[in-house]
Amino acid sequence: MTTQKKMEKVDGELKKLGVKVTQEITKKENPNIEIPIRALSNVVYDKKSGQLVLGSKTSRRYYFNVAHAKKFMQTLMVASFSKQLIDHKIHASIRDMFYNLKRTLPDSHENTFDMQSESDPIIVDLEVALDVLREQLHLTTDRKGIVAGNVQIKDRGDIIDWSKLGSGGWSIPSTVDEVDFKKVDAESVIVVEKNAGFERLHEDKFWQKQKCILIGTGGQPSRGTRLLIQRLNKEHKLPVYVMTDADSYGFYIYSVIKSGSISLAHVSDRISTPTAKFIGLTISDIYEYDLKKCTIKARDVDIKRAKELLNYDWFKKPAWQKEINLMIEKGIKAEIEALSHRGLKFMSEEYLPDKLKKKKFLD
Amino acid sequence: MTTQKKMEKVDGELKKLGVKVTQEITKKENPNIEIPIRALSNVVYDKKSGQLVLGSKTSRRYYFNVAHAKKFMQTLMVASFSKQLIDHKIHASIRDMFYNLKRTLPDSHENTFDMQSESDPIIVDLEVALDVLREQLHLTTDRKGIVAGNVQIKDRGDIIDWSKLGSGGWSIPSTVDEVDFKKVDAESVIVVEKNAGFERLHEDKFWQKQKCILIGTGGQPSRGTRLLIQRLNKEHKLPVYVMTDADSYGFYIYSVIKSGSISLAHVSDRISTPTAKFIGLTISDIYEYDLKKCTIKARDVDIKRAKELLNYDWFKKPAWQKEINLMIEKGIKAEIEALSHRGLKFMSEEYLPDKLKKKKFLD
Repeated sequence: MTTQKKMEKVDGELKKLGVKVTQEITKKENPNIEIPIRALSNVVYDKKSGQLVLGSKTSRRYYFNVAHAKKFMQTLMVASFSKQLIDHKIHASIRDMFYNLKRTLPDSHENTFDMQSESDPIIVDLEVALDVLREQLHLTTDRKGIVAGNVQIKDRGDIIDWSKLGSGGWSIPSTVDEVDFKKVDAESVIVVEKNAGFERLHEDKFWQKQKCILIGTGGQPSRGTRLLIQRLNKEHKLPVYVMTDADSYGFYIYSVIKSGSISLAHVSDRISTPTAKFIGLTISDIYEYDLKKCTIKARDVDIKRAKELLNYDWFKKPAWQKEINLMIEKGIKAEIEALSHRGLKFMSEEYLPDKLKKKKFLD
Repeated sequence: MTTQKKMEKVDGELKKLGVKVTQEITKKENPNIEIPIRALSNVVYDKKSGQLVLGSKTSRRYYFNVAHAKKFMQTLMVASFSKQLIDHKIHASIRDMFYNLKRTLPDSHENTFDMQSESDPIIVDLEVALDVLREQLHLTTDRKGIVAGNVQIKDRGDIIDWSKLGSGGWSIPSTVDEVDFKKVDAESVIVVEKNAGFERLHEDKFWQKQKCILIGTGGQPSRGTRLLIQRLNKEHKLPVYVMTDADSYGFYIYSVIKSGSISLAHVSDRISTPTAKFIGLTISDIYEYDLKKCTIKARDVDIKRAKELLNYDWFKKPAWQKEINLMIEKGIKAEIEALSHRGLKFMSEEYLPDKLKKKKFLD
């Protein structure tokens, strides 16, 4: 679907909601909105697609229901705010939205919203109810993640060449959905958890030598970064390899990129990449690449998290069980930067090329 | 000084250190390094320059001194590592450096470094002892901050146009020192504490309309961002205006940009901008621009911090004392995003143009 088509779909969904509610009012029915339930009880791991998704349970929010009325009003306010953003082609942060919508209802002491913690979940409700992305409602998240590679994009009228941004790379916005790819000349996407890792690889022109698109997530990837990875994978058929620290948090970051997360299960199909593979660091790498001097003792909380991972359906594969058990047994973890022990260019000139060549991935 | 000249100076300082120590060894003297003291006791506010700077106290680190020997070795290891980075024209994070230098001394159980908390302060020791910036030693910090405007720079061989980066802006690296300005077409620099504020202003093409360079710091500015602000101010004579939340933390962010911080007092003269002015939000703005609906109750810790600010020399100006006292008296604070209460474009089309036109700044 083109960017233009996608935006028309979102606009259409918002209109449809408005028309439905006004018709119910005209017909003197009880206006209501159907919203899929987002609680853990309605999140399932879909083995076929390899993604965490929402089940089929839904609830209905009614106007004539004292327990629902305020939330019903808030939902329509947010929907209307989004419609205006789209109409005026502008974007706002969720905090901007909160302040913009916060006011006292006429002849009362009742505020539309008292706290941002009231308006934030309404956005997710709308995402689920309308089956759209928050970014498509023009509600932005904080920018996080950087990318470099032989790619040209068009963004807000500017042509941007990801291969010509000096030491910087392109800072990934939350509105990745609105970017048009003009030229994509790469054979794979390599995602690195740490910005420092990205910088080292970028400085060594790794993306040029390995014909890849290099993405740094700066920790748990933002929605924009996950969306970008998915678009490169789906639209340009590029295999995705993820590199994180060798510890339970790193492994989980990989699984979020691949299968989605519980809290964002409702958008997994639109922002996760089920074919993504894990390129390292594994706990075994510590022994294979002689990094024993550079491990860190795992804390209790690391081990606890590792034990949780063992029980996740999507980690129930022999290779993963072996790695996670090895972490628990040895009580150690290691950071990407540990590779620098073998030399600053070891990661870009030996470790990653070796892994790519021998296809040493975990799935 | 040109970028090339600056790098030669740093290289020269490292060489000088090596030559000094080898000469002392040849002459059978006790090799030593003189390091200015960085403790609070040696940090002073210099009224004339308007900056926090180091006093004149120094200490000496000797090789033949059991209490100094290990640190002496570590200092030379870090200096030698930096020299190699510069010679090979590569950069490394301080964590990469730690892992690279960590090893066991031959025929002993003694490690060169056990923890990164040992190698980090050595870098600062070198900064102070050699009077260079850590970035010039090719030791990078995490990338933070974004910039947009009518500016062309040259970075690692690429020409980058800050006016043509779509929704993104240019992500500010830690190696700002190595960037060459090719074209700077602007009348001022506007620095915004919040990335969301940057995004809103950027989307409204504020920098185009106001002929300014727009910088988003994403909270407390990184060293790279502070250096960039200073370079634009010093080398291109651009006035700098800082916008933060109306609270003690926001005010402090402004003061760090302007006067430096205690922990980085030794580099104030190279990364702070004493002529920077504060453009908002003030506590008075809450009343002047009708934002009373959108304030937040100040927490005890906010008030405590505000009382500390009152006693800082650089806040001992009537206008600042008035604002800080107003915050304490009313017990409120407000975020930049509160301006969205008056409309999403209020900040870019009314608030900031009004402040700029009427020169409503705090100094």
